[in-house]
Amino acid sequence: MTTVVQKYGGSSLADAERIRHVAGRIAREHAGGARLVVVVSAMGDTTDELLALAAQVTDEPDPRELDLLLATGEHTSGTLVAMALHALQLPAISLTGAQAGIRTDSSHGRARIANVEPERIQRELETGRVVIVAGFQGATDETHLTGEVTTLGRGGSDTTAVALAARLGADRCEIYTDVEGIFTADPRQVAQARLLPVIGYEEMLELAQQGAQVMQTRAVELGWVNGVEILVRSTFSEHPGTTIREDLDVEQRNKVRGLATDRRVAKVTLVAVPDRPGVARTVFDPLAEAGINVDMIVQNIGHSGATDLSFTTPAADLARVRRILEPVVRELGARELTTDADVAKVSIVGAGIHNAPGYAARMFGTLADNGINIEMISTSEIRITCIIRKSDLELAAQALHAAFELERPEPVETGSGSSE
Amino acid sequence: MTTVVQKYGGSSLADAERIRHVAGRIAREHAGGARLVVVVSAMGDTTDELLALAAQVTDEPDPRELDLLLATGEHTSGTLVAMALHALQLPAISLTGAQAGIRTDSSHGRARIANVEPERIQRELETGRVVIVAGFQGATDETHLTGEVTTLGRGGSDTTAVALAARLGADRCEIYTDVEGIFTADPRQVAQARLLPVIGYEEMLELAQQGAQVMQTRAVELGWVNGVEILVRSTFSEHPGTTIREDLDVEQRNKVRGLATDRRVAKVTLVAVPDRPGVARTVFDPLAEAGINVDMIVQNIGHSGATDLSFTTPAADLARVRRILEPVVRELGARELTTDADVAKVSIVGAGIHNAPGYAARMFGTLADNGINIEMISTSEIRITCIIRKSDLELAAQALHAAFELERPEPVETGSGSSE
Repeated sequence: MTTVVQKYGGSSLADAERIRHVAGRIAREHAGGARLVVVVSAMGDTTDELLALAAQVTDEPDPRELDLLLATGEHTSGTLVAMALHALQLPAISLTGAQAGIRTDSSHGRARIANVEPERIQRELETGRVVIVAGFQGATDETHLTGEVTTLGRGGSDTTAVALAARLGADRCEIYTDVEGIFTADPRQVAQARLLPVIGYEEMLELAQQGAQVMQTRAVELGWVNGVEILVRSTFSEHPGTTIREDLDVEQRNKVRGLATDRRVAKVTLVAVPDRPGVARTVFDPLAEAGINVDMIVQNIGHSGATDLSFTTPAADLARVRRILEPVVRELGARELTTDADVAKVSIVGAGIHNAPGYAARMFGTLADNGINIEMISTSEIRITCIIRKSDLELAAQALHAAFELERPEPVETGSGSSE
Repeated sequence: MTTVVQKYGGSSLADAERIRHVAGRIAREHAGGARLVVVVSAMGDTTDELLALAAQVTDEPDPRELDLLLATGEHTSGTLVAMALHALQLPAISLTGAQAGIRTDSSHGRARIANVEPERIQRELETGRVVIVAGFQGATDETHLTGEVTTLGRGGSDTTAVALAARLGADRCEIYTDVEGIFTADPRQVAQARLLPVIGYEEMLELAQQGAQVMQTRAVELGWVNGVEILVRSTFSEHPGTTIREDLDVEQRNKVRGLATDRRVAKVTLVAVPDRPGVARTVFDPLAEAGINVDMIVQNIGHSGATDLSFTTPAADLARVRRILEPVVRELGARELTTDADVAKVSIVGAGIHNAPGYAARMFGTLADNGINIEMISTSEIRITCIIRKSDLELAAQALHAAFELERPEPVETGSGSSE
């Protein structure tokens, strides 16, 4: 019997009408005879609203309490989806993350899934029910008296869905969202952006890390490690979407697959840091302890025994970064700490990039031709990223999309494993 | 060491500011050195809002799903109270009903507490923490995979508080609400209403059953059975409130203690029911199965082998009662089913009533003197209730309050056991 895991995001469940629409989609799938597990996010902006409520009470909410608070968002949407299915005469039950057997470590706010105990889900599936699972959450132990509710971090519902698909040996894992799939660039920025029928895990990972917000990177990693094919598609249309899977055609294609852009970054620079061993650790250890993501790191070779150390970080963390690094700057004897939130990231991603040095030159040349200054550069095997002015971002995305001919379909589109 | 259980109602926790106010009260108690367990209701009208959300999705929400949905209300308020205590540098932790060890039967929507497993609460208290417990809820089993979330019915947080006080052997059980205690009548109806420093369990039970909304009857019963003294007082003032306890002075006082009124009732009449055995069962069994409360029942002796059967029921259930009884009326061969939502209940309550038949006469006489027609009468050992027109209710309450001199303090006010 076919087992399908579907995940519906917050915008797909934003109000009662959309919840009924989602129930209709689930009912159609159910009519096809599949055993169905449906992972839900919180309705609309619920998570942000709960965070705002906590912020009204205290500046620094305890992570353990915050997890218990945020987990209510998915309980709410899960029960409502189950009720909407009942209204369609479908047998259904909603389970909390804990009830669904999602066991995590105890890192509140960014817990990792340690294990999925599938007994309860399997029992419910065997009785013919559609099983709704609250995404984004788990529990540290199997009894109420000893277990704590945890959350998996932003976008964690994707991770819940992929983990369940892996554990249940699902035939399909479908991520329903408010876009039709993965595009070569953000269609709001680049009108020529083209939907990709297939993308490799590694490429998707780089796109997601560099700002494409459709899928959480951890979910892609988990899918990659467990060989779960992930279909990303729209709740609101019948478009077949994008399949994320091992892409065997990559070597043949040898091409840039997509662009990612990110406005939510800031650049931090420690100016004139004395050039001695251990500086980087002194700077980055306290940031890591605070759970702050540091992305591109560039150290300029200095004059007179001092260097400038720059890195990027999410703009939302900038105030915390300042608070943490100001004493560090004094301790190191650096001249000053400067921050710049008017920057943005633009990346090109493609599994062919490492074989073709010409891509870097073409990227830098295209930006130069458009009068766009590059402030920082970083590269991976399959990606080149530049930091530019935020005001140049749209122009950069459009120029690069054209330069790499991303609007043209790849010559080799579908391999033998395609589900399209 | 003193152990205190406090319960804060929804209006006491309606927004972030009130939550911070409540945290201040808790901090004051904590400074006195007590071990503190704080039971919380959902914020403001949260429970009604969640019910409305469910109603947008389906007309008949599944009770199991509804419980999981409603339970989020107390998770939210509990975590916020814990955060507000942290902001005051107080160690605190919030527990769900399940985590707090509240084990119930599986009657969703009106579950009964089967057991309280106090290990987790005791462990947290021993580390010096204030323990916040989500009221109104429990779980059917101790593991996530097998346990279901249940709710205890309206006002269930009072029951949670009294059950915890009993199980923990608490020295005090304090119910914080938006009124200063138990009054001789609703002060909004009767300006002369007087706050009672002490009231007996039985009297409180009758007042609560007959419409006084300050305390849930189940909580009073539970307190009575377990000998838990319950102090009802205001979150927003320093008034010492009302203690509910075994009242040894009752026999000496021999007096009406208070009035209760209830507008939320309706009268249902089955007209001209053939007078034969088994009629009552045929009528009331299906109502009981549907969980509908039936209160006063009056069967008028009929002419020509038929009787009129009347009873009262919560006005909110009237549509369901109609739906259930219409086929029953046909089956019984009764003439018709009439309903009347323009009625109200007024009751006098006092442990002395059964010894003094003069009270009934005085009640009926007072209503007659004021031109108020009595439609139904029912009595218990310590109560007399009349059904009258809703439009007469306020006049009735004022006239009865004066007739029984409820504004005058009792001659014997405090017994040896008084905590006032």
